[in-house]
Amino acid sequence: MDEPRIVIIGGVAAGPKTAARARRLAPKADITIIERDRYISYAGCGMPFFLAGSVREFGQLFTTAYGVVRDADYFRREKGVRVLTGNEAVEIDRSKKEVLARNLETGEEFRIPYDKLVIATGSVPLVPPIEGLDLKGVFRLNHPEDAIKIKEHLEGVSEAVVIGAGLIGMEAADALREKNVFATVVELKDQILPGILDRDMAEVLAARLEEQGMEFRLGQKVLRIEGDGDGNAAAVVTGQERLEAEMVIVAVGVRPNVELARKAGLKIGETGAIEVNRHLQTSDPDIYAVGDCVENLHLVSGRKVYIPLATYANRQGRVAGDNVTGKKSVFKGVLGTSVMKVLNWNVGRTGLGQQQAEDLGFNVVTVVNSAHDRTHYHPAHGLVLMKLIVDGNTRKILGAQAIGPGEAVKRIDVAAAAIHFGATVDDLFDFDLGYAPPFSSPIDLAQHTANIARNKMEGLAPSVSAGEVKAKMDRGDDFVILDVRTAQQFGAKHLEDDRVMLVTLGDIRERLGEIPRDKEIILLCAMGVRSYEALRILHGAGFRDIKYMEGGLQAWPYEMD
Amino acid sequence: MDEPRIVIIGGVAAGPKTAARARRLAPKADITIIERDRYISYAGCGMPFFLAGSVREFGQLFTTAYGVVRDADYFRREKGVRVLTGNEAVEIDRSKKEVLARNLETGEEFRIPYDKLVIATGSVPLVPPIEGLDLKGVFRLNHPEDAIKIKEHLEGVSEAVVIGAGLIGMEAADALREKNVFATVVELKDQILPGILDRDMAEVLAARLEEQGMEFRLGQKVLRIEGDGDGNAAAVVTGQERLEAEMVIVAVGVRPNVELARKAGLKIGETGAIEVNRHLQTSDPDIYAVGDCVENLHLVSGRKVYIPLATYANRQGRVAGDNVTGKKSVFKGVLGTSVMKVLNWNVGRTGLGQQQAEDLGFNVVTVVNSAHDRTHYHPAHGLVLMKLIVDGNTRKILGAQAIGPGEAVKRIDVAAAAIHFGATVDDLFDFDLGYAPPFSSPIDLAQHTANIARNKMEGLAPSVSAGEVKAKMDRGDDFVILDVRTAQQFGAKHLEDDRVMLVTLGDIRERLGEIPRDKEIILLCAMGVRSYEALRILHGAGFRDIKYMEGGLQAWPYEMD
Repeated sequence: MDEPRIVIIGGVAAGPKTAARARRLAPKADITIIERDRYISYAGCGMPFFLAGSVREFGQLFTTAYGVVRDADYFRREKGVRVLTGNEAVEIDRSKKEVLARNLETGEEFRIPYDKLVIATGSVPLVPPIEGLDLKGVFRLNHPEDAIKIKEHLEGVSEAVVIGAGLIGMEAADALREKNVFATVVELKDQILPGILDRDMAEVLAARLEEQGMEFRLGQKVLRIEGDGDGNAAAVVTGQERLEAEMVIVAVGVRPNVELARKAGLKIGETGAIEVNRHLQTSDPDIYAVGDCVENLHLVSGRKVYIPLATYANRQGRVAGDNVTGKKSVFKGVLGTSVMKVLNWNVGRTGLGQQQAEDLGFNVVTVVNSAHDRTHYHPAHGLVLMKLIVDGNTRKILGAQAIGPGEAVKRIDVAAAAIHFGATVDDLFDFDLGYAPPFSSPIDLAQHTANIARNKMEGLAPSVSAGEVKAKMDRGDDFVILDVRTAQQFGAKHLEDDRVMLVTLGDIRERLGEIPRDKEIILLCAMGVRSYEALRILHGAGFRDIKYMEGGLQAWPYEMD
Repeated sequence: MDEPRIVIIGGVAAGPKTAARARRLAPKADITIIERDRYISYAGCGMPFFLAGSVREFGQLFTTAYGVVRDADYFRREKGVRVLTGNEAVEIDRSKKEVLARNLETGEEFRIPYDKLVIATGSVPLVPPIEGLDLKGVFRLNHPEDAIKIKEHLEGVSEAVVIGAGLIGMEAADALREKNVFATVVELKDQILPGILDRDMAEVLAARLEEQGMEFRLGQKVLRIEGDGDGNAAAVVTGQERLEAEMVIVAVGVRPNVELARKAGLKIGETGAIEVNRHLQTSDPDIYAVGDCVENLHLVSGRKVYIPLATYANRQGRVAGDNVTGKKSVFKGVLGTSVMKVLNWNVGRTGLGQQQAEDLGFNVVTVVNSAHDRTHYHPAHGLVLMKLIVDGNTRKILGAQAIGPGEAVKRIDVAAAAIHFGATVDDLFDFDLGYAPPFSSPIDLAQHTANIARNKMEGLAPSVSAGEVKAKMDRGDDFVILDVRTAQQFGAKHLEDDRVMLVTLGDIRERLGEIPRDKEIILLCAMGVRSYEALRILHGAGFRDIKYMEGGLQAWPYEMD
């Protein structure tokens, strides 16, 4: 097949990437991209940053790093690829190996024959079943033009509501904040970033964002958007309350756009997305599918998942570009690694979450660690909270999450590399990661987190979570919270509770007699390091009903007093 | 052994870490640290930052994150560890299992019995065999007090010379720059950071630092330091020139401090450092050694290496703390990962360098890639040059280096994790790394670099290095340098050479007829992406004597015109 006819349906990310790679491998191939929109090959992930103003020009989302606009002409000249924008693929005729396409402007229909077809039809936004979505001031943030429309509407807006606290919803709220619009984020689930973070991590993040003025309404179902007399959005009404809103952004997720594939009789997977094999072939070996319309194999759970991400779209494009030109390549699967920035907090996850791991039957051990991202004496250091989800039987890392103003994302990348190879927490400690004061600490925080997990699994570090301590306090349990920080730190902020007792770590050995031996003791400090140290001292002194609170007060999402 | 007597010689990094871990595991152990200095447990790596002023207080290098000074009293109160500062270990009596120590103030000698002994005697600075080292204004940067002395001397200094362009020398030059002292760095080898970077990477880094005013004298042997009549340093004289210098910092490296171990008859390895097994045991099973005084197994080469780094000292301390208290732990080995910051450039390496890999007989394939550390439209994006050293037979990654104002160090950590597991370049492409516009690009630059290596190994991307192109130009070879950038970019800066021809990538398909078919063609662009694209176009059009220049002009360390 020296001059294969390659037809690609969809021109946003995976499609153009497939075309570009195929062209480099097969100079004589006939390559066509069909795209119903007028835009192609755009940086969808950049929309919130355009909205926020950090990307100044709309056009930047459509240009190469060297300033050339990625339009149909660019694809013709630089890539030798024919792009049919404003044309819709109506039907795939698998027996004739033709795509029926329609020019959306003229209505004219025509057929494009293919040897290899690539479906890259992406996703479509979910539409919540509520009234008021057609009011003025109600937007989505799925298409570049959405960002433009929102930006035009922003002037004078003071009260906005974002529906959905997922990745796009949080990025939208963050972008609005950059424009001095304080949005309230409403989420059906009882935590922010439900697909990304475990609840304990999400609670800390939400608390820190709230301290900076973000507002969340969690576990609230939106019933309707109400308008004023002129057809403008005026309020979002949930099961619990009515939120004034001159502007509403609806970001409740996406679903795979599989209609064309389904109509063509291609197999749709259990997740509702197109099923593909490791070569990204659909159930028709001459038809490939890539990007947001396909489901992926999760490499830890072994299950099929629908996790539409730009990185998969791009890497799959390269793999499909290989395969449609006769070079066998595979896309092995995913870990669901997601990262984002909201206000000054970096957020990331990879692998399984705690609940997922428990649902899959793993003997789950988790740890939460508060640490500095670099040497504490370096002026730029920042906090990171890192959580590891570990298989207690094999000691393998199943998942990792990290949040903080510090460099959290690097540690997620390291964890993703580790999980890729089925690394144990012991392996992670063995990694030879780079250390210098501006970048990390001599034992990197990811390795420190691994060590905490090792200590815990070996019985050295019995612990409780912040949530468990809060529950014990609320239940009125009879126990002691032993705060081992300095008197100065304690004076500045501490848990206001009769059960709290201050014995600074440096004094513990001398004041053992004051610590009750007949009660459960929960040790507490700022980040978990000193309370673990204190736990070992108490253990050495014969105390047995002792635990320390993981992550210290940095992991405490509740009011202090 | 419920209450073992653990004696640790050396109190800087590995020693205190050993003590702390041992204490947590063995509450009743009797733990003693002997340290000849008056300081213990200090952040030696922080000295350049104290010198530069970013660490404001000298004391910050000696305090915990929560503000407690790590002195003997701290170790007694918080760790239950006896620290004998100002005491020197004179001799190890292995038959009696005793350390003979001497109080450096009183001269009194005493014996400390041990069940387990840990040698953590660190390293000592190399002293070049030159005159003038005792002149006023000549310093080292190995001990915290060195930093204080340098800082005191800085006032009014305008001309300084740093001898040695290794890690400490470069950090010293960087710190001086922060204090507005422009230092000239003299290095015996013909490149900066000889132990860290390959020559091609070092040349680019040196060029970019020189553009910012740093000065280097490479391949110059220092003969002597000359004084003025008053015993003050006045100049550094090399084989080639005389450099005025009111201040000189000597940073030519360190050697392991093994005298005590050698006198005790412990086995010294081929590198000159103490030989230890995976449990960090010396040739005497009751004596362990950790930190800068030991040699390590390089996990890629399988050879013993002497690479003294704070991260090894700390991680080895934990392992030794396990082993001296009866818990079996191993320290597997190292990859020689080193990272640093100099001016606005981040620098890192892991694994083998190109020359090392070639010397070991690998079929070495290398690639150099210029890329943005995040989406190019994100305002904070920065350049990174990444080099991979790959085994062409197994496709395994042997080493990685990255430099740039962009986030280079994260990619080194990812590469270190990859190399730990013997990853191939194909594995690296499969990693599910986190993508969002503030952090990376949909195909992370490390993965993009891996793809270039894959393309190269598969014959898709024949290439030359900047150095090879320069050599061809200088030799007067008859060939064409085809610059495929935009006319605007070309106008701003280009190689001034008659053999240079401009055909913008977007025009190549139409202007194929103008490109000579009878000459070797080297394709050139800013970062290597377009020239590779152009190469594939020319290849498709039947051109065969074509290569592209890896990394583009961003990897060009020479004058442009």
